[in-house]
Amino acid sequence: MSKEMTTTSNSTRDPIAEARRQWVAHGWDDAAPGMAAVTTITRVQQIVTARVEEALSPFGLSFARFEIMRLLGFTRTGRLPMGKISDRLQIHPASVTSAVKRLEREGLIRRQPDAADNRVVLASLLPEGQRVLEPATAAVNEVFESTGLVDEEIEQLIELLNPIRALAGDHTE
Amino acid sequence: MSKEMTTTSNSTRDPIAEARRQWVAHGWDDAAPGMAAVTTITRVQQIVTARVEEALSPFGLSFARFEIMRLLGFTRTGRLPMGKISDRLQIHPASVTSAVKRLEREGLIRRQPDAADNRVVLASLLPEGQRVLEPATAAVNEVFESTGLVDEEIEQLIELLNPIRALAGDHTE
Repeated sequence: MSKEMTTTSNSTRDPIAEARRQWVAHGWDDAAPGMAAVTTITRVQQIVTARVEEALSPFGLSFARFEIMRLLGFTRTGRLPMGKISDRLQIHPASVTSAVKRLEREGLIRRQPDAADNRVVLASLLPEGQRVLEPATAAVNEVFESTGLVDEEIEQLIELLNPIRALAGDHTE
Repeated sequence: MSKEMTTTSNSTRDPIAEARRQWVAHGWDDAAPGMAAVTTITRVQQIVTARVEEALSPFGLSFARFEIMRLLGFTRTGRLPMGKISDRLQIHPASVTSAVKRLEREGLIRRQPDAADNRVVLASLLPEGQRVLEPATAAVNEVFESTGLVDEEIEQLIELLNPIRALAGDHTE
């Protein structure tokens, strides 16, 4: 049996704390906290995204496709230019195009040129999209209501993370 | 010009705060903080991952491929079973296989059956992998040293996020 096979199973240890000990043992003390922060954020994002995606799967939606539909559902007319969707959701334009094309194939959204400027493509929520959107929102909201953090902790978390967004050029409040 | 085109450009507003106002305006007050938390975590993960990937791009490595090489570099023998890599990095086995195959094509890692149990496949760091690993680690550590948070804030952040990991079954310290 190789040496590695005899080490304590990872399932009883914190792999991020273990990585941090390795970082410190190699003399990278200045980088160790940041490594732990980035790895923790990545892991938590993976966990919460999986929960949201699981809640959305009965509706055939991904988190990104839900966000696009939800954004359209908030507008008075149910439609927005593709570029505006990309800006508001901070999703790459190519990813918006790909997600909207899929929603279009599924009959939830329609794309059409803006009558006022045919260089602009509008995405419009179709009645079937509107019908799916409300129960999908309720399902996602159940996840959002059970993050495991109380509201005060959530405010602390957002306050801690917003400077990272600001450094990347996001406007934050 | 459509109504939406006349709204204030997103570039001067916080899109997450704006989404939160929409959530509250629709009566989803209980879900609004969790929505903001999940969206903030997702955005920050995107920002920090992009910075790490940018630091690694001169070395032809992704964050995941770096993590695998780094993990192997921490072992005495430079090798680990594929399943152990998956456990330690909390990456799906299929993703580990795909990343390791790519590292193998690039001459950084070799796969071989474990002499003690040929059902187990070991990934071994090759000398060229070892050679790339040290400057790649230094480049990533520069990102980790400049997260925009001071150490005390990082500890607060990890303390806030660990309960979410614990709820998902992760062991946390």
